[in-house]
Amino acid sequence: MSDVIRFGVSLSKKLLEDFDRLIAKKGYASRSEAIRDLIRENLVELEWKGGAEETVGTITLVYDHETRELGDKLTHLQHQYLGLVISTTHIHLDKHNCLEVLIVRGKGKDIKNIANKLISIKGVKHGKLITTTTGKKLT
Amino acid sequence: MSDVIRFGVSLSKKLLEDFDRLIAKKGYASRSEAIRDLIRENLVELEWKGGAEETVGTITLVYDHETRELGDKLTHLQHQYLGLVISTTHIHLDKHNCLEVLIVRGKGKDIKNIANKLISIKGVKHGKLITTTTGKKLT
Amino acid sequence: MSDVIRFGVSLSKKLLEDFDRLIAKKGYASRSEAIRDLIRENLVELEWKGGAEETVGTITLVYDHETRELGDKLTHLQHQYLGLVISTTHIHLDKHNCLEVLIVRGKGKDIKNIANKLISIKGVKHGKLITTTTGKKLT
Amino acid sequence: MSDVIRFGVSLSKKLLEDFDRLIAKKGYASRSEAIRDLIRENLVELEWKGGAEETVGTITLVYDHETRELGDKLTHLQHQYLGLVISTTHIHLDKHNCLEVLIVRGKGKDIKNIANKLISIKGVKHGKLITTTTGKKLT
Repeated sequence: MSDVIRFGVSLSKKLLEDFDRLIAKKGYASRSEAIRDLIRENLVELEWKGGAEETVGTITLVYDHETRELGDKLTHLQHQYLGLVISTTHIHLDKHNCLEVLIVRGKGKDIKNIANKLISIKGVKHGKLITTTTGKKLT
Repeated sequence: MSDVIRFGVSLSKKLLEDFDRLIAKKGYASRSEAIRDLIRENLVELEWKGGAEETVGTITLVYDHETRELGDKLTHLQHQYLGLVISTTHIHLDKHNCLEVLIVRGKGKDIKNIANKLISIKGVKHGKLITTTTGKKLT
Repeated sequence: MSDVIRFGVSLSKKLLEDFDRLIAKKGYASRSEAIRDLIRENLVELEWKGGAEETVGTITLVYDHETRELGDKLTHLQHQYLGLVISTTHIHLDKHNCLEVLIVRGKGKDIKNIANKLISIKGVKHGKLITTTTGKKLT
Repeated sequence: MSDVIRFGVSLSKKLLEDFDRLIAKKGYASRSEAIRDLIRENLVELEWKGGAEETVGTITLVYDHETRELGDKLTHLQHQYLGLVISTTHIHLDKHNCLEVLIVRGKGKDIKNIANKLISIKGVKHGKLITTTTGKKLT
């Protein structure tokens, strides 16, 4: 890491103690590393706000594959967003339940769009969109 | 604010510039105030306690594969939690950046544990855990 | 690699020349490394012959997701072999065609069984079973 | 056999013992004869030439993640063929062994090229390329 800069943060003793306990639990090597992660997390959120920038996400779905035509519906919908869906991993949880994780890349608003459509299909028990980043803007 | 303490944070010039732009946009009066908010948000997150029940989740990581030995570190750590990690999907985002999505299944607290360890490794730019469900209790 | 042993191989000049061209093309660093790979490949085949040993494979399928109920059939069949299928990755090749790659682990004969069933389903355009290994017996 | 040449092969004691058992089972009169057969089989395989047409394939690798820097080497190589590798699924087989399945799409000769490079890296115990089809020409 070239061009390292150092700046001071002031906060209450109580908050610092809580923070130290938190980062010890999470396994960070230093406060700086933990703070850097918090900042990057915040920048990623910003990347998603506008909606027009290219970004990356995962969509996690849990559903019962025995629900009539549900699997086919999910597949058809994904094929309509061809450029967006890079890959889908499917885990057979038990006789009935499937976990499906889509990796998607595109404009934030398009990703949100397909996520909403998939999650709202009848028979999908649980769905979540994770918004991450192409990593290009983070150091 | 009684008992105010001051500590130093070191980070790259680029990351600090991005952070300054971000907090200006958000209207923060100072870096300290912004950092304090980030810490407080994080403490709330911690409230969620992983339990002893079996659950399913995904851990999403973005990192630069050129960071020295980072890929090996991530793989070794995952092998230590053998029963927990079902599969890992890796997408090569560009020349530098990788997206890795782990599908995990086990006790909530164990899942949280490995997620924290992976995300806090130096060189991981962004990481997120989501826990979903085995679907068994949902109809 | 401890306990390294060296033995001599005799063959015709012509065959050696062909072999040298082959390994140059494949990018091997030495004849020994190439020969070791050939031997290991042969041992893996043997691991599969008996059928009762635990082993690992991948099943690759290409199909048109618009074929009626095909996706559902494939999913249902996989759920019947729950313990066998670790994960399935699905790539949307174009508006019609899907690539599905199953990673399977179990007895060789059970793996062959599910592979045959999946590949023979009407609508599956192309299917292949790759037999690899748990790696435990190879050095 | 005129023009007979002799060269040395070095390998671990364990691998040689496995090989000796294998060729005894198969009824070979000598190691040289067995090795010559392995080489000839391999030359036949080479006959298949990857062409200029777009195709789809999977590359399956088994390796020990504890081999020094092997994971990093595999990742770096894959990043050099960015457009080619759609996704990689990684399964942690046991404390030592990894299964990695790459889904690749591109010109047949490029796919063959990266497969050869990956499989010939020292430490990869077993590797196989299969090419399937984009499904476009099949009905």
